[in-house]
Amino acid sequence: MKPQETIAPIRQYYIAPQTGVAFTVQKGHTIRVIDLEGGQVSDLVCFARQDTGEYLSSGRTIDYNEKLFLSTGDILYSNSSNPMLAIIDDPVGKHDFLHAPCSREMFRLIYDETETHPNCLDNLATALGQYGVKELQIPTAFNIFMNVEISTSGEVAVKAPLSKAGDFIDFRVEMDLMVGVTACAAGKCNNYRCTPIAVKVYE
Amino acid sequence: MKPQETIAPIRQYYIAPQTGVAFTVQKGHTIRVIDLEGGQVSDLVCFARQDTGEYLSSGRTIDYNEKLFLSTGDILYSNSSNPMLAIIDDPVGKHDFLHAPCSREMFRLIYDETETHPNCLDNLATALGQYGVKELQIPTAFNIFMNVEISTSGEVAVKAPLSKAGDFIDFRVEMDLMVGVTACAAGKCNNYRCTPIAVKVYE
Repeated sequence: MKPQETIAPIRQYYIAPQTGVAFTVQKGHTIRVIDLEGGQVSDLVCFARQDTGEYLSSGRTIDYNEKLFLSTGDILYSNSSNPMLAIIDDPVGKHDFLHAPCSREMFRLIYDETETHPNCLDNLATALGQYGVKELQIPTAFNIFMNVEISTSGEVAVKAPLSKAGDFIDFRVEMDLMVGVTACAAGKCNNYRCTPIAVKVYE
Repeated sequence: MKPQETIAPIRQYYIAPQTGVAFTVQKGHTIRVIDLEGGQVSDLVCFARQDTGEYLSSGRTIDYNEKLFLSTGDILYSNSSNPMLAIIDDPVGKHDFLHAPCSREMFRLIYDETETHPNCLDNLATALGQYGVKELQIPTAFNIFMNVEISTSGEVAVKAPLSKAGDFIDFRVEMDLMVGVTACAAGKCNNYRCTPIAVKVYE
């Protein structure tokens, strides 16, 4: 069922800037991820409730959809080739499934950051730890609203998100899942302004 | 050290069509993967010798190299952001790091294959099983010689490999590894003719 303004979510989460949450959902639920202020990326990963060895797979999803940029009508698959999420409403229409979550090491390698920097990998690992998921199990995320341009020779350029305040994406849940979602902590992909994300879950 | 014809490999493997092998290498070794007959893809995955939880990561590698198509001078990273392999010689220059290994489920979903079909995922899982690696741990492979074209809108098209008989790629090993390599079992990406692959390891 597609969420509408008249239907109350069964759960909702406010994700403060540069933080993350994890929660469980059942097959048939709808997850709405909302960019509250605009221009903000949200990393999403998920794991099968019955086996944390089964996780969201960019490699399977790109193969089966034959495209890099997924939107309404596309299915996100697990490493076991099972549908995990289906995109059912996506007014923004531009997301990334190429980049691993930002991490301490990413900030060190790319930006020479020697201090600890808030990052999606730590935030996902901490939030999903309650379900027994370990940091090394966190896969390449579906990076909601992350705006990546690809040249025909394969260069990858990260641009400011196309999302405006209040923009959202809706996923229909295709199997029982543990889900981790962040308000991304990096600079460039969020147009150098880290803002919050909201998540609503509908029956 | 770059392999030359005058230096004997310390180990070599003949990978029959639609099969795979696994082996260990040490930091400083060179791995050469050879397309014996031309037009053949070879899926490569690897794991840290000291922890099978650390594996080759397309998401980290694409992020840190800022490109989809890797070649000479580029480094392949693990999910912990450590260098695993460096490409040191690559006359062909076109490979894929987007697609998960072909699998039983891939043949079912994409080609409606109901019979068991030889596939890279089974071949990698069987070969790497000797090191305690389980099927669900097999990540998106570095698909040597796989020739994928990307449109600016993100459509992914699989073309015949550019490799000719005897073409190769050389990797310098950046950490002690367990490596799995296949002669890919799928049709389209091998120009509809599955042929063997050779691997040579040099000190």
